[in-house]
Amino acid sequence: MKILILGGDGFCGWPTALHLSSLGHEIAIVDNLSRRQIDIELECESLTPIRPMGERLRAWREVSGREILFYNFSVARNYQRLLDLINGWQPHAVVHFAEQRAAPYSMKSSRHKRYTVDNNLNGTNNLLAAIVESGLDIHVAHLGTMGVYGYGTAGMKIPEGYLTVKVETEDGELVENEILYPPNPGSIYHMTKTQDQLLFAYYNKNDHVRVTDLHQGIVWGTQTAETRHDERLINRFDYDGDYGTVLNRFLMQAAVGYHLTVHGTGGQTRAFIHIQDTVRCIQLALENPPDSGDKVHILNQMTETHRVRDLARMVTERTGVEAEYLDNPRNEADENELHVANDRFLHLGLEPITLGEGLMEEVTEVARKYAHRCDKSKIPCVSLWRSQPESSMQPSDASDAYPTHPDNG
Amino acid sequence: MKILILGGDGFCGWPTALHLSSLGHEIAIVDNLSRRQIDIELECESLTPIRPMGERLRAWREVSGREILFYNFSVARNYQRLLDLINGWQPHAVVHFAEQRAAPYSMKSSRHKRYTVDNNLNGTNNLLAAIVESGLDIHVAHLGTMGVYGYGTAGMKIPEGYLTVKVETEDGELVENEILYPPNPGSIYHMTKTQDQLLFAYYNKNDHVRVTDLHQGIVWGTQTAETRHDERLINRFDYDGDYGTVLNRFLMQAAVGYHLTVHGTGGQTRAFIHIQDTVRCIQLALENPPDSGDKVHILNQMTETHRVRDLARMVTERTGVEAEYLDNPRNEADENELHVANDRFLHLGLEPITLGEGLMEEVTEVARKYAHRCDKSKIPCVSLWRSQPESSMQPSDASDAYPTHPDNG
Ligand SMILES: NC(=O)c1ccc[n+]([C@@H]2O[C@H](COP(=O)([O-])OP(=O)(O)OC[C@H]3O[C@@H](n4cnc5c(N)ncnc54)[C@H](O)[C@@H]3O)[C@@H](O)[C@H]2O)c1
Ligand SMILES: NC(=O)c1ccc[n+]([C@@H]2O[C@H](COP(=O)([O-])OP(=O)(O)OC[C@H]3O[C@@H](n4cnc5c(N)ncnc54)[C@H](O)[C@@H]3O)[C@@H](O)[C@H]2O)c1
Repeated sequence: MKILILGGDGFCGWPTALHLSSLGHEIAIVDNLSRRQIDIELECESLTPIRPMGERLRAWREVSGREILFYNFSVARNYQRLLDLINGWQPHAVVHFAEQRAAPYSMKSSRHKRYTVDNNLNGTNNLLAAIVESGLDIHVAHLGTMGVYGYGTAGMKIPEGYLTVKVETEDGELVENEILYPPNPGSIYHMTKTQDQLLFAYYNKNDHVRVTDLHQGIVWGTQTAETRHDERLINRFDYDGDYGTVLNRFLMQAAVGYHLTVHGTGGQTRAFIHIQDTVRCIQLALENPPDSGDKVHILNQMTETHRVRDLARMVTERTGVEAEYLDNPRNEADENELHVANDRFLHLGLEPITLGEGLMEEVTEVARKYAHRCDKSKIPCVSLWRSQPESSMQPSDASDAYPTHPDNG
Repeated sequence: MKILILGGDGFCGWPTALHLSSLGHEIAIVDNLSRRQIDIELECESLTPIRPMGERLRAWREVSGREILFYNFSVARNYQRLLDLINGWQPHAVVHFAEQRAAPYSMKSSRHKRYTVDNNLNGTNNLLAAIVESGLDIHVAHLGTMGVYGYGTAGMKIPEGYLTVKVETEDGELVENEILYPPNPGSIYHMTKTQDQLLFAYYNKNDHVRVTDLHQGIVWGTQTAETRHDERLINRFDYDGDYGTVLNRFLMQAAVGYHLTVHGTGGQTRAFIHIQDTVRCIQLALENPPDSGDKVHILNQMTETHRVRDLARMVTERTGVEAEYLDNPRNEADENELHVANDRFLHLGLEPITLGEGLMEEVTEVARKYAHRCDKSKIPCVSLWRSQPESSMQPSDASDAYPTHPDNG
């Protein structure tokens, strides 16, 4: 297959590109390197020393004998180049990772809110419009998030994208309908993913674009089989308060001897998946595309759920590094339950890698190895969801208003 | 009240500005005149000779003794000017009309799809981000559309924005939830309005921005009490295949002796409101803002529903001009029912102006008066919802897939 990977320089995109390349697929990457520019803005870097794209691709050629094409442009800003690439190269599938993906970053200021909305929505719309304009039948696999789901914590399992509801007619009859799960995003970033869903639903309905939307949990781990081949292939490891995600942060904090930063009571339950399973899930999604005429396929791409404080406890037990309970910068409930269906990937043959000693140890080793690159001042999360002082909040806020934001990726 | 009107040069915005000014409110308009530029692109003009903004405002000053401020910039492109204006002028309310609002225009090409998404979503997001950044407590009244609703045609009344659904828990219990009505937009334009809803819900939840979203039906008529004062105040009258809306088009077609252009069987039921009621509804919405902490107020701004072919028949009876049944360029069901709740405006005191002889006659007179300005070649709707030939469509498309697109405004 010819597979175009948008956002292929990123944490999920890079190992996905290598994995699919190693399976013999032809790969082209589009990335405007905006994530590396954000590192410059935030005065922070990947804990691991990621190499420039040119060097990454050379190393992969040496190691595997395979060529990956690379195009540096913005899918949100450069429609014509995207269209030309699609028309010229004629990919069978596009994997779309190319979005601003940090919830705290999306909340930093008006500029960050506006960048996230503008970048994510124009990127997705450009991709879909270009596919329609090309007239080609291309399968789009998009990375969404568990954070689009917002309700149904009380004794309800979160289904895969669609919810069956009953509605009363004027005659008092109960009629069944299948709807997109009612969104309740927890940040501007998550909101853009709920808006993406409407773009996919529309282009699928009107133009029969085949779409798989993967509602991914928080990705942990850093290396995959392919990135381990050569140090120049090493994957990104974000540890800062904006881009670092919870489990990787704890493991890294333990490795550098920094207290584990638990927000609020740590009672938030989140969904997780290891980076090795991320790349495998995307492979499975591409091997099992929707048929023409199918509605958008939605799969929950996660393998397990944990409460944040349980993860902290686990890491404390392994390492002796204690947790510190900090004010939660997010505007969310302190405690939530989370039951998530992931039958579709299990059915496709996924054998989940769950949180085990071995892999946690591996992450810790990577973190220890590069501990000297860590700038501890970048660890705290300084983005606030609201600028107002706590006292001006509505009383209902803290308690029941937005129960679930299952991830922060 | 100080009221900022975004899109105040448009068909609904201009008479709203005059109406609110005549009531003694202080008015400032922001408009980038993009609608006039689209006239140039489409090589078409308002049937009525609308005057440049400067002349409009001078005429209003002469007629009423009142001053309306005007700023020419894009709310989607010029965040800083919007923020400065909000900080400096400190409006109590903003009425947000400033969107690309024609469904056929939004479907013309990739460029038009992309412009509509980019303009509408960045505009709305800029407004909300600017209000949050200003720290001011400003009420936003936004013009949405009946076209965001998509289901519930079979014996179900469309509620005002929110739908009560029952969901089965894992124990088989039925739990009640109130959700945003599941969207099912009929064009890229309508889709942006469903995405706007998610922006409003998010900023309302996180930042307590007070929002009223008015789901408006198709506006007909052209003049209001204020625009009638002086010919230089005359309102826009779109008759072309992109911007012209159905009833006004029929009345104009009859006036110039062009067959009435009915799409498909004309079995589509649409919701309508007269322009005089539009301005009155917006006044009522501003006089009855949400309380701080209220969720988004959603009101259906329409007064009656009609099947398109019944309107055609009515116009034929009055004028003798026959209807012609054309292929429907839209991708929608041929026939649909539509029952819409509009209790909230009735409760606030709206006395609906319904489709009566008098007002139809008035529109016909305006159309007759300016018939010499009509370019008949602009009457057909040439935007197609899909480029593919009919034969490549899925069999389910034409029948049941997307039952309701209650308006085309
Ligand atoms: N990392 C997680 O835990 C996680 C969890 C759930 C979902 N996701 C989703 O998976 C996707 C990838 O996440 P990631 O962790 O790899 O993020 P990342 O920031 O590391 O990678 C995204 C890549 O896209 C690129 N990009 C962004 N905007 C672009 C544009 N307009 N044009 C071209 N390239 C652009 C960036 O430069 C970056 O290399 C995102 O959509 C994210 O929302 C990630
Ligand atoms: N006309 C109808 O039948 C109808 C029906 C339902 C809803 N609506 C909604 O009501 C609102 C107004 O509709 P209308 O019929 O007056 O449309 P219109 O096109 O006549 O007016 C919109 C105005 O907004 C301006 N504008 C657009 N983008 C802008 C931007 N980025 N910055 C500044 N100004 C901008 C345009 O120049 C124009 O003057 C729209 O949001 C529309 O979706 C209209």
